[in-house]
Amino acid sequence: MKSIHGGDIYNNKVNMDFSVNINPLGIPHSVKDAMSDALSYADRYPDMACSGLKKAISEYFTQQGCSIQSEDVIPGNGASELFMAIAHAIKPKKAVLPAPGFFGYEHVLRAVGCDIGYFLLDEQSDFSPAARLDALMDMLTDDTDIFFIANPNNPTGYLADSTFMKQIIGHCKEKHIYVVADECFIGFCEKNYSVLSLLCDYDNLIVVRAFTKLFAIPGVRLGYMLSKNDTIRQKVQRNLPEWNVSVLAQMAGEACIRESEYIKETASYVSRQRRLLSDGLKKLGFKVYKSDADFILFYSKLPLYDILLNKGILIRDCSNYVGLSEGYFRVAVKTFDENVRLLKVIGECIEKN
Amino acid sequence: MKSIHGGDIYNNKVNMDFSVNINPLGIPHSVKDAMSDALSYADRYPDMACSGLKKAISEYFTQQGCSIQSEDVIPGNGASELFMAIAHAIKPKKAVLPAPGFFGYEHVLRAVGCDIGYFLLDEQSDFSPAARLDALMDMLTDDTDIFFIANPNNPTGYLADSTFMKQIIGHCKEKHIYVVADECFIGFCEKNYSVLSLLCDYDNLIVVRAFTKLFAIPGVRLGYMLSKNDTIRQKVQRNLPEWNVSVLAQMAGEACIRESEYIKETASYVSRQRRLLSDGLKKLGFKVYKSDADFILFYSKLPLYDILLNKGILIRDCSNYVGLSEGYFRVAVKTFDENVRLLKVIGECIEKN
Repeated sequence: MKSIHGGDIYNNKVNMDFSVNINPLGIPHSVKDAMSDALSYADRYPDMACSGLKKAISEYFTQQGCSIQSEDVIPGNGASELFMAIAHAIKPKKAVLPAPGFFGYEHVLRAVGCDIGYFLLDEQSDFSPAARLDALMDMLTDDTDIFFIANPNNPTGYLADSTFMKQIIGHCKEKHIYVVADECFIGFCEKNYSVLSLLCDYDNLIVVRAFTKLFAIPGVRLGYMLSKNDTIRQKVQRNLPEWNVSVLAQMAGEACIRESEYIKETASYVSRQRRLLSDGLKKLGFKVYKSDADFILFYSKLPLYDILLNKGILIRDCSNYVGLSEGYFRVAVKTFDENVRLLKVIGECIEKN
Repeated sequence: MKSIHGGDIYNNKVNMDFSVNINPLGIPHSVKDAMSDALSYADRYPDMACSGLKKAISEYFTQQGCSIQSEDVIPGNGASELFMAIAHAIKPKKAVLPAPGFFGYEHVLRAVGCDIGYFLLDEQSDFSPAARLDALMDMLTDDTDIFFIANPNNPTGYLADSTFMKQIIGHCKEKHIYVVADECFIGFCEKNYSVLSLLCDYDNLIVVRAFTKLFAIPGVRLGYMLSKNDTIRQKVQRNLPEWNVSVLAQMAGEACIRESEYIKETASYVSRQRRLLSDGLKKLGFKVYKSDADFILFYSKLPLYDILLNKGILIRDCSNYVGLSEGYFRVAVKTFDENVRLLKVIGECIEKN
């Protein structure tokens, strides 16, 4: 059974899951310890204000030279909760989404009955949004209310540069369009193209990030949004449940954000492994797209999803993405051993077919 | 600092917290074990469909003689998430809320810009909604979209009987009014006045329950809603984030629902302790209201909140509830030792004042 997202290990028999893009280094020890400690507090209501976590996030970014105050932060039960609250808060009538892109934006926009215009990314340019800048500008008109952009994009892995991001956020500001910059995977990139530094000057900008992927804790559910726009933050908060972040998630998050060495190591490890996997897939004859993330999009005429599932390996069949078709697959960048094993298994399958 | 809810141990120095109404028997061992086990799965995405948990809930109620299918159940990140999703799904224009009542309903109705009419409960009848049945019927008119009723009510603890509940749900059905029956505390009551058995015949009925209180795991966040109305369930699901229940919460929930002995023991223990606490408070000269829940509302002219906080005991000052005023306090029914200690401390304070 193919799923609308990766990670459906509940309906499949899986030994190696390349369908979800979580940190191959695994959960940091300090975070595991924090989660164990948190169990002793399961019988307490969580801090509704998430004060400790907000403070820790604000301090982390301030150390990085980016002025984020505690009050700019809204933690959520995963990025997916924040996307939903943003949709309920803004109640957009018309949205623009790059395609292919994460299905989650569509899910929340449908909930509020919003019209969606898809901006088709160009496969020939590795799905770079900048390659069709003029077309994108033309699409982002006065009657657009919201524009979601993931950087790096998912499922393509393409990382747009700061110049492009600034240009498009500026254009949207002129046209009174909110920009939701989904930076859930930016921690895996070596280049720092985050738009966090633009928050002060662009009150139409909302940044969403997740702990889920970078710290390998998708089971915990924890993300946060950042905005310098008081009105938007208040509206989002009003559309969130009163207690939305569990004690475990708050304590795990505080431990995560202090793991600055692990964060650095992640980007460098993933970069090496991405090259290995990307080169390997190219050698096997696939068309592989440029990625700066912890996953790779590639094209194959073989029914790779079924072939690999038969071997207990789950990859992401991307044929159900708007803007993609049969033959597109996404694999996570995992550990050296796992990546080598994936390449070996695919190689053997090719020989047999 | 007084808080809009109980349990604000983050801004107060507290040794004994009588402000939150969680099971005095504490977290069952099997649930603790399940949570420990769940930590090994923090690096996996939760099952989006919550299949195991839905099945366990459905089986539990079926054993109790109540026909609940897996598909009737929607688990949530605490009851508070489900209240919000219900508001977003129904988009009510006009709501009726009994007062005093849980602030959470107001929070979600405000998010969708809904007008709220308060049905004032009668203090002289222990805040029984049945005591003013005609007035309530008159208020629930054709232009009302939704009616929230907690049974037992919070903060009063009053448990309405099945006849009243059926009458009001039937009236609402005729008037096309959705009824959200909040049964988060009904597991603490010895009398079985749940409206679950009405779900089949009343498609305007939504029941919300929580694991939080009954199994003493408020830090985990886990609740569920039950409805036989496919359209409503689909709308609610569309307004929920895609992954809303953590791995930990799902595994804890499955363990909770199997604790049928603990559930029985709870109702009987709480009943004995409630009597002890209620009698004790009456002896101390307070006006104590009838409760079937794990908490008690009472009235005192003394500034008990501040007096007890000075002694490290947090109780719920209820003066900020619509329909109550200065002098109303709510205390949780806790363990024998804690209840005795509370009565002793209050007694000493009265002597000094």
